[in-house]
Amino acid sequence: MIVEIAEAAGRDSVDGLVAACFGHPGLTTWEVRADGRRFVAVSGDEALVAGDPETCAGVIAVHPTTRDGYWLVARESGLRYDVQVGGVHVGAPTTGMWLAAGPCAFEDEADVLRIAKQVRDQGAHALRVGVYKPRTSPYNFQGAGRAAFASLRAIRSETGLPIISEVLDPHDVHALAEVVDCLQVGTRNMSNQALLTALGGAPVPVLLKRGAGAPLAEWIKAAEYVVAHGNPHVIMCARGITSFDTATRHALDLGAITAVKRATGLPVVFDPSHSTGDVRLVRAASTAAAAFGADGLLVEAHDAPHTMYRPGDGPQAFPPAGLAELVETAGRVRELVEAADHAA
Amino acid sequence: MIVEIAEAAGRDSVDGLVAACFGHPGLTTWEVRADGRRFVAVSGDEALVAGDPETCAGVIAVHPTTRDGYWLVARESGLRYDVQVGGVHVGAPTTGMWLAAGPCAFEDEADVLRIAKQVRDQGAHALRVGVYKPRTSPYNFQGAGRAAFASLRAIRSETGLPIISEVLDPHDVHALAEVVDCLQVGTRNMSNQALLTALGGAPVPVLLKRGAGAPLAEWIKAAEYVVAHGNPHVIMCARGITSFDTATRHALDLGAITAVKRATGLPVVFDPSHSTGDVRLVRAASTAAAAFGADGLLVEAHDAPHTMYRPGDGPQAFPPAGLAELVETAGRVRELVEAADHAA
Amino acid sequence: MIVEIAEAAGRDSVDGLVAACFGHPGLTTWEVRADGRRFVAVSGDEALVAGDPETCAGVIAVHPTTRDGYWLVARESGLRYDVQVGGVHVGAPTTGMWLAAGPCAFEDEADVLRIAKQVRDQGAHALRVGVYKPRTSPYNFQGAGRAAFASLRAIRSETGLPIISEVLDPHDVHALAEVVDCLQVGTRNMSNQALLTALGGAPVPVLLKRGAGAPLAEWIKAAEYVVAHGNPHVIMCARGITSFDTATRHALDLGAITAVKRATGLPVVFDPSHSTGDVRLVRAASTAAAAFGADGLLVEAHDAPHTMYRPGDGPQAFPPAGLAELVETAGRVRELVEAADHAA
Amino acid sequence: MIVEIAEAAGRDSVDGLVAACFGHPGLTTWEVRADGRRFVAVSGDEALVAGDPETCAGVIAVHPTTRDGYWLVARESGLRYDVQVGGVHVGAPTTGMWLAAGPCAFEDEADVLRIAKQVRDQGAHALRVGVYKPRTSPYNFQGAGRAAFASLRAIRSETGLPIISEVLDPHDVHALAEVVDCLQVGTRNMSNQALLTALGGAPVPVLLKRGAGAPLAEWIKAAEYVVAHGNPHVIMCARGITSFDTATRHALDLGAITAVKRATGLPVVFDPSHSTGDVRLVRAASTAAAAFGADGLLVEAHDAPHTMYRPGDGPQAFPPAGLAELVETAGRVRELVEAADHAA
Repeated sequence: MIVEIAEAAGRDSVDGLVAACFGHPGLTTWEVRADGRRFVAVSGDEALVAGDPETCAGVIAVHPTTRDGYWLVARESGLRYDVQVGGVHVGAPTTGMWLAAGPCAFEDEADVLRIAKQVRDQGAHALRVGVYKPRTSPYNFQGAGRAAFASLRAIRSETGLPIISEVLDPHDVHALAEVVDCLQVGTRNMSNQALLTALGGAPVPVLLKRGAGAPLAEWIKAAEYVVAHGNPHVIMCARGITSFDTATRHALDLGAITAVKRATGLPVVFDPSHSTGDVRLVRAASTAAAAFGADGLLVEAHDAPHTMYRPGDGPQAFPPAGLAELVETAGRVRELVEAADHAA
Repeated sequence: MIVEIAEAAGRDSVDGLVAACFGHPGLTTWEVRADGRRFVAVSGDEALVAGDPETCAGVIAVHPTTRDGYWLVARESGLRYDVQVGGVHVGAPTTGMWLAAGPCAFEDEADVLRIAKQVRDQGAHALRVGVYKPRTSPYNFQGAGRAAFASLRAIRSETGLPIISEVLDPHDVHALAEVVDCLQVGTRNMSNQALLTALGGAPVPVLLKRGAGAPLAEWIKAAEYVVAHGNPHVIMCARGITSFDTATRHALDLGAITAVKRATGLPVVFDPSHSTGDVRLVRAASTAAAAFGADGLLVEAHDAPHTMYRPGDGPQAFPPAGLAELVETAGRVRELVEAADHAA
Repeated sequence: MIVEIAEAAGRDSVDGLVAACFGHPGLTTWEVRADGRRFVAVSGDEALVAGDPETCAGVIAVHPTTRDGYWLVARESGLRYDVQVGGVHVGAPTTGMWLAAGPCAFEDEADVLRIAKQVRDQGAHALRVGVYKPRTSPYNFQGAGRAAFASLRAIRSETGLPIISEVLDPHDVHALAEVVDCLQVGTRNMSNQALLTALGGAPVPVLLKRGAGAPLAEWIKAAEYVVAHGNPHVIMCARGITSFDTATRHALDLGAITAVKRATGLPVVFDPSHSTGDVRLVRAASTAAAAFGADGLLVEAHDAPHTMYRPGDGPQAFPPAGLAELVETAGRVRELVEAADHAA
Repeated sequence: MIVEIAEAAGRDSVDGLVAACFGHPGLTTWEVRADGRRFVAVSGDEALVAGDPETCAGVIAVHPTTRDGYWLVARESGLRYDVQVGGVHVGAPTTGMWLAAGPCAFEDEADVLRIAKQVRDQGAHALRVGVYKPRTSPYNFQGAGRAAFASLRAIRSETGLPIISEVLDPHDVHALAEVVDCLQVGTRNMSNQALLTALGGAPVPVLLKRGAGAPLAEWIKAAEYVVAHGNPHVIMCARGITSFDTATRHALDLGAITAVKRATGLPVVFDPSHSTGDVRLVRAASTAAAAFGADGLLVEAHDAPHTMYRPGDGPQAFPPAGLAELVETAGRVRELVEAADHAA
């Protein structure tokens, strides 16, 4: 349950509301602001709520969350969040097709800097590069970690590009947020609620990848976690889903792009690299996502994939020199489809 | 196992080959022609083959089929089949984006004729319309059946459009082939080998939809059934696959378009209507399929979906008046992506 | 829609009902008997029905089928069908755990006869053996076909065992039904409605395997097809479903056994061989199915699997000598679980 | 890569090994003990290893991990870990079918204590109860958290039962481990490597649930994370997997029980409550898991489910009074199947 309270409501009113309605031990409350408005969020079964919160002093409206499990990110809430990464509005018409690109993992400062410059010169809005790498095996490279923080600062400073990087541990959120401009939640951690809750307190936006086996509603509720805990700057990132099919690495969840945009006001981008695992399909997948209305692309790019620590990842790395053309094609396709849809 | 034999090989040579190598009761042989060449096909475990067929008189080459289960449709066979529907080459550069469109089911001759004319005037290459309808419940409309055959002849005659229609029973193949120009195998019958075998003897091409739960290799082997039994004119039709996800009706199997084109020389088209179940996504899905190299589209189209016997199917019917624009957008996107891929 | 009509209703009443209510070209009707009662089945959208069938002469009751798509097999219909294979009631308490076992494919009469005798001596109620084999590749052994019919007669005659065998082509139904006692619909043909409809006219019961990717409701509606077309003797056979998981060949759909028994009155058996593909798991899977209330087992059994035409199938063949113990263990487990459930 | 080193190897030898072979920045090393032996674990691509570690002083053997991604938990390693929860050996023949049971969430101390006593009197080996609850929506009850720690101590002290409870945040591991005897990783966090790594340092065993969409190999590698970081006491818990099927909440991954036991030496238990979501299926699922060799059961139990904060979870809660009978039935079934398998 989300209860909107008046801007002017005093501590007494809020305490009174909580005492009157949400005193049951199965309920917890906290305050949250979103789109310039003020709310009391309530976790716990709505059957445990006492009385009628609508009648309490200072209460403007009560929004049940039983059916969907989310409200702050719902299109029907009417709340809008302007999500910016390094000053660029993701999902805004003026931005066009947003592009973040870069190497899978931070390995060597000189390499990343060289790629970052190419990425920037191709018109990308942000650099993606991982310093904490989620791996299924403990014997795979786990990322450079804090040792790379100084390099990230230097690269950002030299290129002017904002940086997107994945975070795995809730307790790394604040330190990493000092050296990057957007924190990524990877597919394996979409339902890691301790991490999502911590990201609610992050001073930078969150790029939230869909879990490979996650129903759409769970993905949206994961976004609601971040927003409900104080950070309304969430970018949704579709990246393919698990199926019985092995023709490509993942089944493309393109319909989910449209579905999330219908259900919420959040920007939705697409990862053509991890969804296909095949650089030969990156342009097709980028274009297809654009046709479904994607607001941007998150592309793994490397100019010398054979030098990577895990050469096995090379086959999905897109050449930086082709990025401008890639995003321009995708942007034109999105315009073509939108124009035709509007004309119809 | 597929054994290529010389054009000039006499009955004695073939009989000798079969007697020498394929006499085991677990083996069956038959002759088949493909791409102007002559083959003996052998079903049964290759361990049961006696001697070495390569050394028999009249034998040109032996192609094992144990690993893949197909060879005649494999790209590596080097065989090429020119698939035409009503004289139009599907998958040929001169055709551009091939389009078949029309109502889900034949209900009323005047309605179908009216829609067919619109479809033709929008530049479609064929009319799709079903007279045998596969339904999960016996209490759903099963199609007009043979009662519609005369109407199909009349509509084809009046519009000049070739017709594509689904067949369910192997024993309807020849009668239906007299009134239509291409026989469709629906998703539920992709693994109906009695039907596939019968279609090997059909005088018209086959449009083979992928089973919603079928691995890619099984789909290709279903095509091999038709070709191995004498009909090399097969169009593959991707149409979405089953997954845990319900954001759209099916997960889009776009990567399968590329994968089938890499593995075989068969044309591959896409059904944006049944894969999404939502007319609002038909243009996006068509464009996305084009980005992945689809040779054509199979679109459910109706100008008055509210009059259909099952109004519930209406939401996926595309307005015929928009078809020319739909296919033009898709064609331009395919060109854009191909041109960029070639330049890269 | 299913309309129950009085036993005594004359031709005039039925014709009058059809003329008054079901004259729309989108509707088709036919008569069917089930559990000694008499029905008019109607296919087509219920919105096309004119007037109120309940008020017509001779009509006892009207059962809508829009929501579920089935009624004759629904538990709530109250209709009960006594399914017997060779005189043995499948799903009856007096039968206990029903067992059908035998080799995958008919290859050699002497082999099958030898195995059949072992199977019979182990207490099996029926012999399973395939003469029409559905294969994903045309180059796999397709079964002995009609050539084996005389042998089937001889084996049945000598062993006294009823035979279960798969049918693929609707036009083989009657010929095969002359030499076997139960016709199997394989997983690939569960949605082959031409075959299901033909089986409605078969003089023997039908064992209907679940499609590996079929939702439960589609499986039940496939059974309704057979019953609605005149054959109420249907045995449901669960056999595993497709998932992303490859730990075993299929995910075990054990909950489906219970769910079908709750929703319908049909007997449900389980195939532990094809669901696991591993003879070492056959006992575990049989027992697990029994715990979920399976009425019987369909077990692939062979005493010399290394001699099979496709030795690759050997690893799932259970030794006939262990069948009595297998079914006894399963039967005891079912009793244990049922007794505990009843006591709880 | 895992390098076994001699017990007597000095700091010099280990440092020398690392310097000689693992100096590349893409490699990281750490020491770990398992089954009384001593290892250097190496993360990073094996192609980056310099020289031949086998020839270094103090090295006993080198175990590559490239193919499987795990070795310490592999059956072929020969290492064995004796996993005890509160002094009871899980997976040992002397324990029989291990049972942990209790309410989903800690709500009220008196309620949990009452249920704990029943659970203990029914012969359970441990109490399961959650204080940190992973929820898809932030508006569901998130658990009592640290506020319940004192109650957990009191309940453990009064009943003598060891407690199993889920942990979500790596930084809660040590505090929670002081008041419970086994830390559970829930299905949503199976791939939360920050948590798994932290659990490598926990002083209590870990019960690791399978991710609902996780391939078997990823589940085993998640266990390897915990062991490789120092905690060899891992219990695997199968709990159903995602599929297209909705007949039961999850498809039962029973084959995974056997597969994990073949591949590793870890004990494997089953959760019949969350896999089925239906108390009427708990006995069937428990018995089925036992047939596949499960070493124990993790059962949600409550004597008054209608009083729970989320009554919606009630339908899966098993009555504590039936637990002894439940586990006895399961144990008998496991013995029956094992005895028959051994006799075969």
